[in-house]
Amino acid sequence: MIPQWVIEKKRDGQSLADDEIRAFISDYTSEIIPDYQMAALAMAIYFRGLDAREVTTLTDAMMHSGDQIDTSVLDMPTSDKHSTGGIGDKVSLLLAPMVACCGVGVPMLSGRGLGITGGTLDKLASIPGYRTDLDTNEFLDVIRECGCAITGQTASLAPADRKLYALRDVTGTVPSIPLIAASIMSKKLAEGTATLVLDVKCGNGAFMQRLEDARALAEVMIRIGSGMGRGVSALITNMEQPLGTTAGNALEVIETVEALQGKAVPDLLEVTLRLGIEMLRLTHVETDAASARKRLIETIASGQAFERFKQMVALQGGDAAALDDCNRLPQAPVVLDVLATEGGYIEGVSADGVGRAVLQLGAGRKQTTDKIDPSVGVSNLIQVGAVVSKGDLLARVHAANQAEAEVAREQVLAAIEMSGDKVAVPELVLGTVVDE
Amino acid sequence: MIPQWVIEKKRDGQSLADDEIRAFISDYTSEIIPDYQMAALAMAIYFRGLDAREVTTLTDAMMHSGDQIDTSVLDMPTSDKHSTGGIGDKVSLLLAPMVACCGVGVPMLSGRGLGITGGTLDKLASIPGYRTDLDTNEFLDVIRECGCAITGQTASLAPADRKLYALRDVTGTVPSIPLIAASIMSKKLAEGTATLVLDVKCGNGAFMQRLEDARALAEVMIRIGSGMGRGVSALITNMEQPLGTTAGNALEVIETVEALQGKAVPDLLEVTLRLGIEMLRLTHVETDAASARKRLIETIASGQAFERFKQMVALQGGDAAALDDCNRLPQAPVVLDVLATEGGYIEGVSADGVGRAVLQLGAGRKQTTDKIDPSVGVSNLIQVGAVVSKGDLLARVHAANQAEAEVAREQVLAAIEMSGDKVAVPELVLGTVVDE
Repeated sequence: MIPQWVIEKKRDGQSLADDEIRAFISDYTSEIIPDYQMAALAMAIYFRGLDAREVTTLTDAMMHSGDQIDTSVLDMPTSDKHSTGGIGDKVSLLLAPMVACCGVGVPMLSGRGLGITGGTLDKLASIPGYRTDLDTNEFLDVIRECGCAITGQTASLAPADRKLYALRDVTGTVPSIPLIAASIMSKKLAEGTATLVLDVKCGNGAFMQRLEDARALAEVMIRIGSGMGRGVSALITNMEQPLGTTAGNALEVIETVEALQGKAVPDLLEVTLRLGIEMLRLTHVETDAASARKRLIETIASGQAFERFKQMVALQGGDAAALDDCNRLPQAPVVLDVLATEGGYIEGVSADGVGRAVLQLGAGRKQTTDKIDPSVGVSNLIQVGAVVSKGDLLARVHAANQAEAEVAREQVLAAIEMSGDKVAVPELVLGTVVDE
Repeated sequence: MIPQWVIEKKRDGQSLADDEIRAFISDYTSEIIPDYQMAALAMAIYFRGLDAREVTTLTDAMMHSGDQIDTSVLDMPTSDKHSTGGIGDKVSLLLAPMVACCGVGVPMLSGRGLGITGGTLDKLASIPGYRTDLDTNEFLDVIRECGCAITGQTASLAPADRKLYALRDVTGTVPSIPLIAASIMSKKLAEGTATLVLDVKCGNGAFMQRLEDARALAEVMIRIGSGMGRGVSALITNMEQPLGTTAGNALEVIETVEALQGKAVPDLLEVTLRLGIEMLRLTHVETDAASARKRLIETIASGQAFERFKQMVALQGGDAAALDDCNRLPQAPVVLDVLATEGGYIEGVSADGVGRAVLQLGAGRKQTTDKIDPSVGVSNLIQVGAVVSKGDLLARVHAANQAEAEVAREQVLAAIEMSGDKVAVPELVLGTVVDE
């Protein structure tokens, strides 16, 4: 295979042969093909796309560039959830123990956050002692013990994707649906889950801002999963406003604990349930949505899900007692109330705007090398559809110092749009895409 | 400047600002921007193009990435010719001394060949002793002495182009009109010529195979030259069949000598004259085509041009006596006649087919690191429009051994198309593009 011929072929709009894709990825992983040829190919793919066969082969090649975890040794149905990233998205933390309580193993390899979207690992890392670096055996042992584990992707998993992902970030080739789909699916399939539910976020706080793009991405990922014998379905969920009422790492752990104690705000609970229903259906643990929903709610009502969450945290080295007494979690020194300057209906709470404020506070990374502050963020965030009077609490800013708190207060205020007219609570699930 | 933002801007079809282009090229030259970002930008440019301002700025930035030769010290009008590359194209060898005889300085920095198109430097290097590595002072001295010099581009001239050219070759980003135009023009303008005539080859043996592409390339290059205060015009010439009757390095030197002795085949002479007329007009040495043509022909008829060529060769260290006695030039051990297997009219002599045969014989480079054999090639090549009988000579193959000679004979035969009907001699000049 001559790399530039493969690049030229794609540049000219032709389909690449399976062996061309496999050889390119294999040689890229082993550094026979340099970054500049992969960058040129990625840009050609940005413009020309990949057909269903090509993207499946690309995913398979990236998945096989490193180790794969064999979850069949667990001897239980397995399901994972992947979100394309949003603001205040702590769903994984609730969902994993809830689904595990229903007898489904949840092998969840998660990522750190970059930009305005928070990472599940960063949230869990705010619990003192919590290890996000389990090796494969430890990972499987935790699932065996409590039904779920959430840890970081090891270096040996899909190394081709790791290289390509970093390269795309600096070569303007991130927003390509086939490349995004192959990246997500190669990692998720390498982790060995038999089934997978995708939460494709759509809105101003998400990577995909248009419904048709979100749907296209979902369809490509489902086709890949189906082509590789895994059950995959997708929800497209609203990311115009943050999910739940907190954004920031320890603050989101606290909201998770409250949700597992039965005090979830409706949007967070509903998205979690809808994703959980899909996981139970895909694994055939439940066949209809109503009974799946009932069973999932029961895991919260019975207190089982919260116990399971604490068990998982403890098994991964975390201070489970901090979940019973959240004062043991990192606390920001300055807490500032954001108050309504006028009365009215909340028409918009920009996920992007809140995300930027939280990033600015230090809860996220502008660059992969940035350190994050687990204590800072926003809590008590008002939601679209609420009615407030002047002086009511719109949000509470948690900051490292007074100056940053005041900047964030203005940013949060600017993210909130008011209306004189009554505003409906927005649709949460914008679409469902299932394998046919 | 954040490189990936510039890449994204071009990817999304926006125009780049002048300072973005200049910073990108400057940082690429000094290796602050790595190859992978330049490769991604080049591919984005392939798809999105560059407007007139952007391509002029890019050319200027690449030209200013290294040294520029100041030909004003010569105190004479200067003109150069650049060809986009063809088969059997020895025009530079004739043209430089002819134009120099008319009082125009010809500062010609030329390149080595790659692929089927031969390089002017490789042809001259077949003359024993000829130096293609003059430094700038030597280069100017030779022009001062005899009016023309043909040598290789030094490493300090347009280093950004040198890097980008090598990168494009391996990243599928060669066939981009703005990138081709900027590459050619940055080198040619750095060499300091006041005026420039472009010979844009069009046909199966050329890079540009469609007239509209050749015209578009010519127009972009003329606009760049005009934007930078240089007089530039272009001829689009036919490269469906090789130019002249030889292809191969020493063989083309012999054809040059014969042409300078008044025995040029019509197509070679006509293309040379048409380009020379433009050079005399651009430098205002002649104002009308007829008198320019007359003057150029006179340089051959008087023997002056041949003397000037020998003088240049001698000044550049070459064995000028080998031009009087061509047996001193490298000779191939095996010479094989290619005879007509049937009678008829010659309908086509594929420049691409002959070029591949000659490359296969060892006269060119498949890769930049290949060594070439100066003695091999094809001579006595029949031309379109000729009528032949069975057994007539169609070409003569010069090879390193019998086996290669026989392979080449079949390739040359396959490149020649016959017809039962009379065939017209093809148009030589397909178009003229001048600065308006």
